[in-house]
Amino acid sequence: MISDFQFISVPRIIFGAGSRDLIAEEMRRLGGRALVVTGGGSLEESGAWGGIEGQIQKAGIACERVRALGEPSPELIDESVAALRGSGVTLVLSIGGGSVIDAGKALSAMMTQDCSVTEFMEGIGGREHNGAVLPHIAVPTTSGTGSEATKNAVLSHVGPDGYKRSIRHDNFIPDLAVVDPELVLSCPAGVTAATGLDACTQLLESYVSTKANPMTDALALSGLGFVGDSLLLACGEGAGDTAVRAAMAYGSLMSGICLANAGLGVVHGLAASIGGMFDIPHGIVCGTLLGTATEEIIGALRERGGESVVLEKYARVGALFAGREYCRKDRNFLCDKLIEILHAWIKELDIPRLRDYGVLREDCAEIVRKTENKNNPVNLTPAEIERVIVKRLV
Amino acid sequence: MISDFQFISVPRIIFGAGSRDLIAEEMRRLGGRALVVTGGGSLEESGAWGGIEGQIQKAGIACERVRALGEPSPELIDESVAALRGSGVTLVLSIGGGSVIDAGKALSAMMTQDCSVTEFMEGIGGREHNGAVLPHIAVPTTSGTGSEATKNAVLSHVGPDGYKRSIRHDNFIPDLAVVDPELVLSCPAGVTAATGLDACTQLLESYVSTKANPMTDALALSGLGFVGDSLLLACGEGAGDTAVRAAMAYGSLMSGICLANAGLGVVHGLAASIGGMFDIPHGIVCGTLLGTATEEIIGALRERGGESVVLEKYARVGALFAGREYCRKDRNFLCDKLIEILHAWIKELDIPRLRDYGVLREDCAEIVRKTENKNNPVNLTPAEIERVIVKRLV
Repeated sequence: MISDFQFISVPRIIFGAGSRDLIAEEMRRLGGRALVVTGGGSLEESGAWGGIEGQIQKAGIACERVRALGEPSPELIDESVAALRGSGVTLVLSIGGGSVIDAGKALSAMMTQDCSVTEFMEGIGGREHNGAVLPHIAVPTTSGTGSEATKNAVLSHVGPDGYKRSIRHDNFIPDLAVVDPELVLSCPAGVTAATGLDACTQLLESYVSTKANPMTDALALSGLGFVGDSLLLACGEGAGDTAVRAAMAYGSLMSGICLANAGLGVVHGLAASIGGMFDIPHGIVCGTLLGTATEEIIGALRERGGESVVLEKYARVGALFAGREYCRKDRNFLCDKLIEILHAWIKELDIPRLRDYGVLREDCAEIVRKTENKNNPVNLTPAEIERVIVKRLV
Repeated sequence: MISDFQFISVPRIIFGAGSRDLIAEEMRRLGGRALVVTGGGSLEESGAWGGIEGQIQKAGIACERVRALGEPSPELIDESVAALRGSGVTLVLSIGGGSVIDAGKALSAMMTQDCSVTEFMEGIGGREHNGAVLPHIAVPTTSGTGSEATKNAVLSHVGPDGYKRSIRHDNFIPDLAVVDPELVLSCPAGVTAATGLDACTQLLESYVSTKANPMTDALALSGLGFVGDSLLLACGEGAGDTAVRAAMAYGSLMSGICLANAGLGVVHGLAASIGGMFDIPHGIVCGTLLGTATEEIIGALRERGGESVVLEKYARVGALFAGREYCRKDRNFLCDKLIEILHAWIKELDIPRLRDYGVLREDCAEIVRKTENKNNPVNLTPAEIERVIVKRLV
């Protein structure tokens, strides 16, 4: 029986090596003046920006620029919107990692409003956005967040009263995602590993989510197949191989579509609580906890019984990652295989432990207190959540 | 290696039994005056329309009405647009089979223009539409065409100089598809069989299409799984079972998304040529030819070699339909199994032969001449295409 579900729209997608050459034409079709949002400079260094910029100039599109260094803050958004007031910007192009695309989303959402972005932030202003946005073209240069397909932008206020919160609206999904795996070729191994494990976490959590539906099931499993084949390669000998990078870029894109429609689980609950308390990249916290969390969830499902559909899903992923055909009778073996492979990847990719970012044993109680299970297929108890963290402290 | 692909947006989807109760609220959110497009009266007879209409009235939404009996003609569209000029209609709601939703699409596309729809019809006017449309909510009452998710509307001019042509634009994809399997409960067995086989054909053809991509692969296979489990049931003892109807409605929806993004094959090439020459329902012509066409394509692939990826896809569908786990070593057996199951379904569902609609042996040459392979995984020769038809003449 298919349960009731809703599926929000996905962005229009242009996927493929060299697809960045279509960006300027897409901007010209939208018309007007562009706001280009980029990150810290690696795009320029890679040489890719020069080519895109040349095409934009050739197409006669006037541009304003905003740089988002690190995770965007509400201040950056408010100040940029104020500075751009009266500039006549009619569309947004964001090229970069998840933070840059989130900044693009927030700017596209706030150029049409006359208040601070904090008014729309969940748990802060809490006002509902009216959905009026500027058209937004998102171009990812990492394969991880899937932000090019999601409806929220995460904004971070750094400092002693620091927080991470989203603004969210179906209309914040970019109008067009241009996914060019060649733009990820220069992404360093450490970032590739952390973002790749983030994509893997998002795919696995949305696949087993209580809000999953047959569409997200199909797309998540498709993404997991490509990530399983390519994650280690992308961080090693396949880093310069466009086909390997394409597989990861596709997995990341699917992870965004799936999380936007099916939600996430306890690893992202932990990423929110730990990420709010410590300065730790999102991909690292997800990656470091994915193995222990999956082990704990599968253990809890086995112990509490009755959730055989979810165990079957985990087993399917285990079969995919192990390069085997799925067979129902091997369900238990394949679940164990999945746990084993995740631990092996995290070890092989040398994902840091939480202690490296200052998380101590005595912080665990507060982390657990702040952690939500989200749409996890089983509600882990505080003791179970604590075990997930403690195993990855040192 | 993932080949380059583009994926156009899908409609926002509300899926589930009783989801029709959300239509009025969605219309109210869009605001303004509605044009309601319905078909021949079975919706009213089923009692479902009364409930929806009551909610629309309660929400205070003023409505104009257009009835589309049978496949919509260019004349119906032009006359309706002329009659509605100045009515202040701001949104379109279409509730019915594929023809009704296609009429809704054409009206949503033409209420913003001041010329005849023929100007935009492929192979006739051939002008490019500017994409300006009225918001369109599509509500299918059959499970077959997937029109609620596609970007084209088929218009038919009946008569000695008859033709069937599409208008097409990415913006013609309805903004919202409300898929309520309860609306299909009263669909008679014959229509369920023909439309169900149309959905099956669309899924299978887009899955093996030369334009397929990993996203359409995942969604097509997902739809095929549900159709395989439920097609015979929906036409028989499961006709009154909402879960069975939901499976078919989901399969149909996926078929629309997949065909809009991956195209179709030679069965739809034949449906176009035969459908232009004879008065035969689209679902019947697809359904009657699906078995012989699949047999011919698999035979051609085997004969010409080199296309093992496509044979593997057919084998995966064979495994799905046979309720078996897919195993690579059984590829040949599973391809044969698929052919056998398709023939058995067509027989069991008593799908008429072409002769019943006046197609004679001597018409075959002209049919073959007019038939395109479209995105078929192998280009069938005229002799092969003729064999597909001849086997289903009588």
